Order: sequence, then C-alpha cells, then structure tokens
Amino acid sequence: MTNPGPMAAASPTQPGAYAVIFTSVRRESDGDHYDELSARMAELAREQPGFLAVESARGDDGLGITVSYWDSLEAIANWKREAEHMEAQRKGRKGLYASFTTRICRIEREYSFKFGAE
Amino acid sequence: MTNPGPMAAASPTQPGAYAVIFTSVRRESDGDHYDELSARMAELAREQPGFLAVESARGDDGLGITVSYWDSLEAIANWKREAEHMEAQRKGRKGLYASFTTRICRIEREYSFKFGAE
Repeated sequence: MTNPGPMAAASPTQPGAYAVIFTSVRRESDGDHYDELSARMAELAREQPGFLAVESARGDDGLGITVSYWDSLEAIANWKREAEHMEAQRKGRKGLYASFTTRICRIEREYSFKFGAE
Repeated sequence: MTNPGPMAAASPTQPGAYAVIFTSVRRESDGDHYDELSARMAELAREQPGFLAVESARGDDGLGITVSYWDSLEAIANWKREAEHMEAQRKGRKGLYASFTTRICRIEREYSFKFGAE
C-alpha cells in the first residue's frame, strides 16, 4: 500500500461518515503484484466522489489492515464497482490474498489526540 | 501488539456488532514500553464481557491500526474504563504515541473470502 504517512492519523472524518475496514492475509510469494495493485487501488480511491481518507498498515506476519473513509454508503457502492472493474482487468485479489474480510461500518463516535514534541 | 496471527482475518463478527478502530503513530524511541502496554491491553480486552476479536498491524513507518470488535456499545464503554484505569497505573498512551485517533463504529455489512491452497 502507498501509505500516506503518519499524518493520516488526523483524518477529516466525523460521526455519520463510513469506514471500510479491509483485513487481509497476504500470500508470501507475490510482493510485487501486491504492491502494484495496492498503490493503484489507493490512487483510484482518492479520485472517487465521497472519499475522505485512507490509512493502511501491514505487519511482518502478513496481516494487513486498510481502512478507507467515505461520506456515504452510495460513495462506497460506487467505489466497490470501480474497484471490481479494475480487479477484473488486472490480477485481482484472488491471486494476492490467502483470505480477506471487508466490513462496512458507520462511525458513531470519534476522538483524537495529538501530542506536541516533548 | 501481540498479534493473534493470520487466522484473525476470519473473525466472529457480524452486522450489528461494533468495531473500535484505533489508529496511532508510535514514537520512535519507546519500543519496549509500547510492546508491553500493547500486549497487556490485548490480554485485558480478551477478558472483557462482549469482546469478539482483535486484529492489529503496524507498518515500518510507525503507523499502526488496531481494530477490536465488540457485541455492544456498553461492552466498549466498560472496556474503555478498564483501559483508562490500566493506563493511569502504568506508563500510558501519552508517552508512547505521537498521536492517536479512536473511532467507534457500527458494522453495517460484512463479507469474507478465504481461498484454498492452490
């Protein structure tokens, strides 16, 4: 994933927005295709109407979590169609992941803290 | 974080359950304290009524995402009280993170795929 970096922790979401939690276990063998698809997917997400932010982390054990934030369920449905179309054209998720789960969630509450340099 | 491993991708959640998305930027300097607190927090979460699952990943850039899943908002409120109590007793989050955001979300839809060995 092309990670937007630590600033992503302060995101422009608020209660009433939606989060798509994408949890995946990556195959060990296919790093190059994975990186290419992930980067293209993040780029495509950012171009979509209703996109708010994306945050992504993958640990050494192969478990990855990407959370994208959207202003409506309609925006998520449109994004899902675009993503499936892109996956159909390229090597899709089936080749890259051992398993994945997608959860679409409504943000009920949110709170943030940012500490100054000490 | 004591990561439960790839099997966490198949979790016992379903629509109507709640997800707590905890996104954090870790300070570079404090790995040992971080690991200890994270492990203890995950252990404490698993002991709480209403706990369903937890998934966690942290990338090389210091951005981490931990998602815990719960059966009700009440379970989350109880867990939050326990976690704050524990943080007050030990070196808390303020010492470990440059910033963090917590989002409490209701799961609206969920779908999973698990591919067989090919």
